[in-house]
Amino acid sequence: MNAKTSYFSGSAQLPKNCLSHVSVDCIILGYHDKQMKILCTEIKGMPRPKLPGGFVEKKENVDDAAYRVLEERTGLKGVFLKQFKTYGNANRTAEQTANMKHLLKKQNVNAAAMNWILDRFISVAYYALTEFSKVTLKDNFIDGESRWYDIHNMPPLIIDHEDMVRDALKILRLQIHNEPIGYNLLPSKFTLPELQALYEAILDKKLDQRNFTKKLMSLNIIKKLNEKKHIGGHRSPTLYKFNKRNYDKALKDGVALAL
Amino acid sequence: MNAKTSYFSGSAQLPKNCLSHVSVDCIILGYHDKQMKILCTEIKGMPRPKLPGGFVEKKENVDDAAYRVLEERTGLKGVFLKQFKTYGNANRTAEQTANMKHLLKKQNVNAAAMNWILDRFISVAYYALTEFSKVTLKDNFIDGESRWYDIHNMPPLIIDHEDMVRDALKILRLQIHNEPIGYNLLPSKFTLPELQALYEAILDKKLDQRNFTKKLMSLNIIKKLNEKKHIGGHRSPTLYKFNKRNYDKALKDGVALAL
Repeated sequence: MNAKTSYFSGSAQLPKNCLSHVSVDCIILGYHDKQMKILCTEIKGMPRPKLPGGFVEKKENVDDAAYRVLEERTGLKGVFLKQFKTYGNANRTAEQTANMKHLLKKQNVNAAAMNWILDRFISVAYYALTEFSKVTLKDNFIDGESRWYDIHNMPPLIIDHEDMVRDALKILRLQIHNEPIGYNLLPSKFTLPELQALYEAILDKKLDQRNFTKKLMSLNIIKKLNEKKHIGGHRSPTLYKFNKRNYDKALKDGVALAL
Repeated sequence: MNAKTSYFSGSAQLPKNCLSHVSVDCIILGYHDKQMKILCTEIKGMPRPKLPGGFVEKKENVDDAAYRVLEERTGLKGVFLKQFKTYGNANRTAEQTANMKHLLKKQNVNAAAMNWILDRFISVAYYALTEFSKVTLKDNFIDGESRWYDIHNMPPLIIDHEDMVRDALKILRLQIHNEPIGYNLLPSKFTLPELQALYEAILDKKLDQRNFTKKLMSLNIIKKLNEKKHIGGHRSPTLYKFNKRNYDKALKDGVALAL
C-alpha cells in the first residue's frame, strides 16, 4: 500500500505533533428539498464507515481542530460547527482496537505511533446543518471516500458514532426552538411550504399547516412579500422572508417556537 | 506545609494514574428561597477561587470523574450533573502557569508531576442545580474551603471559570423551557408564588404573574390541589403539584414553556 494514499500516512508524527487522548468528530447534516442527509467517511480496511474526525494539534484550539479536520477530510469550508457533547467513556474505543491494530500493522505504522493511536481517546463532538446541494466534497486521498447518506438509511458506524448522530439530532430538534436555524438553509425568499418542509425534515414529523403558519405570523418573525414564486400554472405561492430583528428579539425574550 | 493537607498531595501519582490533558469542572448552582448561589473552592496560595474540578483516572469514564471530583471536594452526593461544554482553547491555562509553578515548587511537587500538571488541559464542564439548604458541605482537607457565593456577587475566578459560569447559566435558562427543572428544587406541594420565584431566580428577571399562571395552567402541567398552605393570617395560598405525565408529554411534543 502506498503510504501517501494511506489513512495513517504521517502517523509517525502524531505523538510528537498532536495532543494525546483527545479527538474531534463532526456530525454534518445536509438538507435539500425535503431530504435530510448525513456525511460519513470510509477508511479502507475498516468494516464500517465513521464520522469525519481526527486529532488536535498541540497548539491548536479544539474548536479549530474540528474545522481543520472537516475541511481536510471533506473539503467543507466555512460551515458553522456547534460543539454539543464530549464522549468520554473509558472503554468507548475498545471494540475497535483489534480492527485498528490489524490495519495499523498492515500499513507499517511504527510501534510508538500505534500505541498512541490505540490509547484511550475522548472525543469532542460537533454538528452542523448545511445545504448539501451547495457542497462540493473534495476528492481527497486521505479517507477512502466521503459521502452523504439519507438519515433514515444510515449504515452502522464505528465506535459510538451512532450515539453521536442520535444525540446531535436530538439537540438540533431542541435548538430549532431557540435558534434561527432556517436562515442558512432556505433561499432569502421562500414559500411557506418550503419553510414547513424544512422544519418537518429537522423534526422528522408532519406539522399542522394552519398552526404552523399561525404561530410564525403571530410572532412576526416572517414577513409576507408582495411577490409570488413563479412555478407555472395558476397557483403561484406567495414569497416570504425572515424578519431577522423580530426573530432575534423573540429568541432573546425566550419566546420559543413551539411547533 | 504538611503534604497531607496540601492541594497537591499525591500529585506524584498523577502522571501514572490519570489521563493527561483532560480535566473536569463543575458549576454547582444552588437555589433556596429566591436566591441563586454558586459553589466555589479555594486553594491556599492561589489568588482567586475556582470551580470544583479535577482530573480523570485512566480507567474512569469522564462523567464518573465529574461525580467523584464533586464528592471528594465538596461532599455533594447524588446531584444530577449535566455535561454542557468542553473548553479546549490551547492557551486557556497559560495565564495561570506562573502562579501554579510557584505553588507547586513551594509544595515540593516533583518535576515529572509538575510538567504533567502544567501541560495543556482541556476541561469538560458540567452543571447541576440543587437546593442548597439541603446540602452539607463536607469539611474536606484537600481544598482550602468550599463555599456558596451569591450569583450576583461572585468573586473573580481563575482561568476561564467565569466563562464556564456564564455559559452554564445561559444554557440553564434555555433548558428551563425543555426540562422539568423545577421538580427537584421545590417541595412536592408548592404555591404559585414559590414556583414563580424559582423561575425568576433561574431566568434572573421578573415574570408577569398572570401570564405565568395562565401559561402553566393552559399546558396542564401543574395541578391545583384542594389544600392550602398554612402561613397564618387570612391569606392561605393554594397548593399545587406538578402533573408529571403532562409535563413530560409537553416536553416530548416540543411544547416549550415560553415564559
